[in-house]
Amino acid sequence: MPAALTIIPVDGLPEIESGHDIAALVADRIELFDGDIVVITSKIVSKAEGCAIELATVEPSGFATEWAERWEKDPRVVEVVLRQSQRIVRQIGPVLITETHHGFVCANSGVDQSSSGAHERILVLPSDPDASARRSRARFAELGVDVGVVVTDTFGRPWREGQTDIAIGVAGINPLLSYIGQQDPHGHEFRVQEICVADELAAASELVKGNTSRVPVAVIRGYEWEADESASMAPVIRDSSRDLFR
Amino acid sequence: MPAALTIIPVDGLPEIESGHDIAALVADRIELFDGDIVVITSKIVSKAEGCAIELATVEPSGFATEWAERWEKDPRVVEVVLRQSQRIVRQIGPVLITETHHGFVCANSGVDQSSSGAHERILVLPSDPDASARRSRARFAELGVDVGVVVTDTFGRPWREGQTDIAIGVAGINPLLSYIGQQDPHGHEFRVQEICVADELAAASELVKGNTSRVPVAVIRGYEWEADESASMAPVIRDSSRDLFR
Repeated sequence: MPAALTIIPVDGLPEIESGHDIAALVADRIELFDGDIVVITSKIVSKAEGCAIELATVEPSGFATEWAERWEKDPRVVEVVLRQSQRIVRQIGPVLITETHHGFVCANSGVDQSSSGAHERILVLPSDPDASARRSRARFAELGVDVGVVVTDTFGRPWREGQTDIAIGVAGINPLLSYIGQQDPHGHEFRVQEICVADELAAASELVKGNTSRVPVAVIRGYEWEADESASMAPVIRDSSRDLFR
Repeated sequence: MPAALTIIPVDGLPEIESGHDIAALVADRIELFDGDIVVITSKIVSKAEGCAIELATVEPSGFATEWAERWEKDPRVVEVVLRQSQRIVRQIGPVLITETHHGFVCANSGVDQSSSGAHERILVLPSDPDASARRSRARFAELGVDVGVVVTDTFGRPWREGQTDIAIGVAGINPLLSYIGQQDPHGHEFRVQEICVADELAAASELVKGNTSRVPVAVIRGYEWEADESASMAPVIRDSSRDLFR
């Protein structure tokens, strides 16, 4: 029987800056236990890793400039969004849905202009969120605790209004839980074949982190998982040959 | 500051059958408190509401028969899937993505063949999951407790492998939480405008319900919400004029 889960917001973290040791800051503020899952908003990972881009240094292409003028956007920001992408999935009106270099499909390549200091700096996603998660997991291990790590961002989705937090990086914990070949009590195979638990952990943690409060980290306690050092987001990224909407 | 959340699986429910009073069965098995959110898998709601369809009674159309034969499916099941839809969004190979009469976009109109007793009965989604949730909320109120209710199903999504639980019906609690017009500590508007908390509550609860264990109900305790009797899933269903993938 599954046990109850607890989802704990980590209060009192300082404003994260480039070079900050997020794992140490988290461990200072909450007692962690082996088996906990630490869920970290990518925004602070980007900040700690120095992923802010000075707009003054960005030279927009003609394509970026033309489209930005048409939709009253900053061409330097559009340029950064394009550079963060490997492909444009939809470009309709002012909306730009891209496939990032990681393979995530989202609006504006996940570029965040919301807290960029007078709009002169913008924050991009970590270049390798699995590696970011693995470094955090290793750092927590140095601090004496064996925890899984999930790095999250807030994405929209087709067909449904409202955004939800999803996983963009994992360490220690596999993002997918497979039911393939298992049967229900009546002997039928399950309609559900694989659950993306990483996305569910991300979504669950958003409920205590919120997007307006400054709570960028939550700890999930009581979820059972098996440590796997090879875990990554790769199996979550659907191959375009299997995708009906790309 | 947000408080910690607890997500509690409701163990020991009987196999739900047509006419069962789910709220009473849940209240018998767990002490509920005002403000709890009861998250119920739609499968048992469908069972309690008698949403099973006897395949022997289904006369498949020529369209259903032809496509079913081509992909080695049961034409009667295909017919039920089509009847549960208002539009086919994608029909590629053996995959059928439909828009249900409710407006949800999902595989096979959410029709569940997994536990249908020798494949002679199949279960369709509740005809009005908001109404199902409202009836449960009202029943819990009769039993003396003021709880929000979320009815869930397990959906796939574009671009990402693995399914997650999402909300298909709500009562008492609004599915969307808006940040529109609010500003971060630096005075910038948030990149995130609306969070679909109903989907996050659904996803969180799946972590304790699981899909193989027979735990179709979870209780979320500690989440702050304001009661709104007009709450429904309607604002989550994106209008097709605003949708880039339909």
